[in-house]
Formats: sequence, C-alpha cells, structure tokens
Amino acid sequence: LDVEAMEQARQRQENLTKPAGSLGRLEKLAIQIAGIQRRALPGIEQKVVIVMAGDHGVTVEGVSAYPSEVTPQMVQNFLHGGAAINALARQANARVVIVDIGVASELHHPDLVSRKVAPGTANMAQGAAMTEAQMLTAINVGIDILQAQQGVQLVATGDMGIGNTTASSAITADLLQLPVSQVTGRGTGLNDAQLDHKIVVIERALAINQPEPQNPLDVLMKVGGLEIAGLVGVILAAAAERIAVVIDGFISGAAALVAARLCPAACQYLIAGHTSVEQGHGHILRALELAPLLNLGLRLGEGTGAVLAMHLIEGALHTHNEMLTFAEAGVSNREEEEKN
Amino acid sequence: LDVEAMEQARQRQENLTKPAGSLGRLEKLAIQIAGIQRRALPGIEQKVVIVMAGDHGVTVEGVSAYPSEVTPQMVQNFLHGGAAINALARQANARVVIVDIGVASELHHPDLVSRKVAPGTANMAQGAAMTEAQMLTAINVGIDILQAQQGVQLVATGDMGIGNTTASSAITADLLQLPVSQVTGRGTGLNDAQLDHKIVVIERALAINQPEPQNPLDVLMKVGGLEIAGLVGVILAAAAERIAVVIDGFISGAAALVAARLCPAACQYLIAGHTSVEQGHGHILRALELAPLLNLGLRLGEGTGAVLAMHLIEGALHTHNEMLTFAEAGVSNREEEEKN
Repeated sequence: LDVEAMEQARQRQENLTKPAGSLGRLEKLAIQIAGIQRRALPGIEQKVVIVMAGDHGVTVEGVSAYPSEVTPQMVQNFLHGGAAINALARQANARVVIVDIGVASELHHPDLVSRKVAPGTANMAQGAAMTEAQMLTAINVGIDILQAQQGVQLVATGDMGIGNTTASSAITADLLQLPVSQVTGRGTGLNDAQLDHKIVVIERALAINQPEPQNPLDVLMKVGGLEIAGLVGVILAAAAERIAVVIDGFISGAAALVAARLCPAACQYLIAGHTSVEQGHGHILRALELAPLLNLGLRLGEGTGAVLAMHLIEGALHTHNEMLTFAEAGVSNREEEEKN
Repeated sequence: LDVEAMEQARQRQENLTKPAGSLGRLEKLAIQIAGIQRRALPGIEQKVVIVMAGDHGVTVEGVSAYPSEVTPQMVQNFLHGGAAINALARQANARVVIVDIGVASELHHPDLVSRKVAPGTANMAQGAAMTEAQMLTAINVGIDILQAQQGVQLVATGDMGIGNTTASSAITADLLQLPVSQVTGRGTGLNDAQLDHKIVVIERALAINQPEPQNPLDVLMKVGGLEIAGLVGVILAAAAERIAVVIDGFISGAAALVAARLCPAACQYLIAGHTSVEQGHGHILRALELAPLLNLGLRLGEGTGAVLAMHLIEGALHTHNEMLTFAEAGVSNREEEEKN
C-alpha cells in the first residue's frame, strides 16, 4: 500500500470536524483505501460483485441439505434477478457478474459468463477434487474476469455451489491445522446427525488426499472447488490491480485464505464484509487478522454480506472526502496539548 | 405490532429462494417492520434523521474535552452540510432535520428548526438540569417535529451537545441502578484523570438531585438534557404513528431508555443502529433487549451510526420484497420433512 497516501489520509482524518478517532472503523477503511488507490482522497465510482458458481462431486456423500440441482436453478435465479444478491446489488448499485466456472449441468443465458472448467469437481472423499490443470485454469478464469472489470474500484466476492461449505471446511482444517469438527457447520441447514456425517466425510477426504498444509495450491486442488479457485484468482488479480476486495462469508473466506498463503501482501487489499454463522469463517478471519464489518447472522453466501458491507465502505469514503476540517468549518478543536 | 402481518412476512421469508434463516437479522428486521407498518410487504420511501442540539450547564465543571462553543459551531456545520451526518445522510438519501432545542447561543439559519426551550440546561451538579415545564416542553417539541415529518417510514435519532455524555451517563446510572463508573466513558476524548473527574461530577449530581429511579421523568428533568428530552418525544411519537425508529449511540440510547420506561410498548418500534464505544450504551441496549446492527467503534453521535444502519434495514426490505419464492423461481426446496 502507498504509505504516503495513507499518512495524508490519516492527517486529514485528524482535522475533520469530529473528535479524533470517533468514526472508528470508518476512519481505518478510508486510510486503507487511500493506500490501495495511492491517493489521499480515494473514490468508488463503480462496484461489482463476482459470483462464481460450481458444483461439488462430494455431494453424492450426502453432505448438504439441498440437492445439487439447486446450483443451476439458483444460477438461473441470479440471471433473472430474483435472488438475495440481486436485490442487495440493485440497492448498492453494484453490477452482478455471474460466472459458470463449474456447474455440472449445461447453462445458457446472454448474461451468464460461461467459463466452465469442468462439470463440477470430482468426489474429494475418493480422490483429488480437481486435476492440477483444472485448478490452475480456474484460478486463471478468476484473473481474467477481474481484469475484464474496467473502471471498478470495489469488488465483492460471491459464490454458489451446493456442497461448497464442505470444501471450505476441508481447506480451512488443513491450512489452519484445526480439527475438522471445529471448522465445520450446518451449511444450508443440516441436523445434528447430518453434521456428524459431514465431518466424517471431510475427515475421510483429508485422510485420502493428504493435502500438504504448507502448499496452498495442493490443498485447493485436492479438497477445494472450482468456484473457490476462481475466487482465489479474483482476489490475487484485484490486489495486483490495486483494487479493494470485500470478501463475503465462509467460501470467500476459504478463497482468501488460499490467496493470502500464496501471496501474503494480497491481504492488505481485503476487507472482511461480515462474519458468517459457519464457525470455520471466524477461524479464517482471525488467522488473516481481518475484523468483519458486519455480524448479522448471515449464512447465505452469493456475496450478500459483502455487498451489504459496501454501504459502510462507501460511508467511510463519503465522510473522509466530504466532511469539512475544523479550520474550514470554523469549529474549535480541542486544545493542542490534549491531542491524541 | 400487527401479529398477522408479521406472520405473513414470516411465511414469505420461509419461501424465498434461500435456506430458511440464512439472512439472519435481515429476516427479523423485515418481520418487525411488517408488524410496525401492518403489511406483509413493508416499504421505506422516505427517511429522515432528526438531530436535536442542546447545551449542558454541567460543562462548567470541566466534563468535556471540547468547549461549549462547539455546540453552535457544529450546528452551523450541519447547516452547511460539512459534518459527518451530512455526508452519511446524503449517501443514504435521508433528509437531515436540525433542531435548536436548547443551544446556549443565538442561532439563525433558514434550514434550522428553531424550537429553543432554554439556552442550555442548568448545572446538574448544583441542582436540577431542567424545570418540569422545560422538560415537558422539550418532549413536546420532539413530538411536534416527528409529527411534521409527513410520509416518512424510517426515522433516525441524532444529537449534538457538548456535555451530553455526562447527562446520558447520569440517566443510565440512575435508571439502571448501576455504579456511575460502569456507565461513564471518555466522551469526545478525556484522559484518565479527566474521566475520574467526570465520574465524581456525575456522582455529585445524582447525590444532590436524588432522581427517583422509578420515575423516568424525574430522572430526565434532574440529570437529563433538552436534546435528550426532545428525542424522547421523537421516539414516543414515532411509536404512536407506527414508524420505525433507528436509534444512534449513547445519547439516543439514554432517550430510548427513558421512552421505554415511560411506555414499554415503544420498544417494539426501535432498531438499535450500532453499539457505541461509550460503555454505558451497551448496558442500555442489554436492558432494552436490543441487538445493535453495527459495531464499528463509533463514538460521534449526530445520528451517524443510525444513518449507516439504515442501509441494512433497507437491505432487509429489498430482499424481503424483491426475492422470488422457490415456486416462482423454479428452485427445489429442501425436503419437507427437514424443514425448520
């Protein structure tokens, strides 16, 4: 990040008509984005949420409350504007980009970005979820798609894929070296017995694949997902292009964890939109030292929490750029000696 | 609240294209506002933030890091659009209503609502902050101003007044019967010694005035503030008019506490916008059983946290009203037997 722009932004925050520090996280966000955009008065004119959709072979093990058919059905719902992410993106004035990076069935729609790498992953409970070529191609799809977003200053990551909390839990358990039971949740709504079964399936996938915790690409390939790999590419490309990325919940978090292990500097471009009900997400955020902006009990994915958080990020820039300083407004500041 | 409209809204939430409950707090907000507006598909077309400004005689005791002159200076700043609340209200498309309910100096501006009850309160460390007539008049000003907001479906409360965390701490300590030290914070930025002094001043004010904890109006009159009394009126009138109120930080919280003690049913119309750094605010929210939407380390007041939270409340209604149901979208729901 640009240290000089951040220092200028910090000084500006000190002189705006408010007690120093009284806008809390908003001040920190403005300074971070100043560093990302290399200017003391950063701006956000265009926003996008990139929703990567892919299927998971592991669903045959009965790890989800919903059938796999829901993945293409929900993609159609996105394309018709009827899902939560559509409603929230319209509100936030963010473009929605829907990418078929690995849905098992055929999908056609003029607004769908068709970049299918494979018709879903293989069943990770019996072997690697992807080949190395599939994984690398999926990352490149994410890079391509981010680079195609001209003029965007804020990107939200989103996901759709029945079974993808299973993959995210496997990635998280392996990269953070935590017990599977600590990073596995109910996904779309498993009961106790189904949750226990999901944990057993993930433990089996890790035992069979032996992904190397020191090698994030090995973990991604063996127990990840095509949409997760795509989001890794989005995050890395955004950091390279100096664009802020607001990450959504557990699946986006798993992608962020892989991206951060590949390139720790990418973390500086990340903003955690919210903390998910899925318990693995909190572990990821702590590992990445990211404080979530929202904690609303969301567990939907699609980018919903990230797009909701965009309002707060824009609020940070509106106050930073539009407020008057003490001198401009003719407001008395506290005595100099007491200044923080 | 309208139980039937809430039940219809709850059923709608169950059938929207998402796992049941996966939008967390957003679902609860939509159901609450359905109950407030008495319709299953509630809407928000117009929003307003009402900022009540007043001075506090207790500032002569040295309880604030900023001088009292800052109150009228900041009111001028509001009227010129240069403060944080202006930037955030522009972003949220909320009207800003600035009310001089008790600023110590003369203020004139075409956009200022001049309803000065008194030029600041008396010093509560030496006697009652207000007369009974002043307090009741200030509450009525709040009622009047709320009733003048035609066509508004969401109201945010805001405040400006150097010294008003002192009054809010006194109210909170007395109504919740908590030690002053537990509900008193650094306000605009006191150091340790100044904070200790502030606590002593509040303890003296409570000892001299002996406000009755069972009588919220007695507490408000003796250790409150004109802007706090005005906000009590705003909250009570909004509840009477079936309008949702998003409350801001500690000062708005103290007003909400008084309003809730006067009329417990008013609480159902409240939404807690955020939790303030001021420690007394958390005690109020717990006492009122309100869960804050945001926790961003804000401690500015003006209605800033409430207006930021408006985006989330609107997000709740956008998803509630605009999402398709499983049947409409042709998406498979989970098996019936597993339904929550």
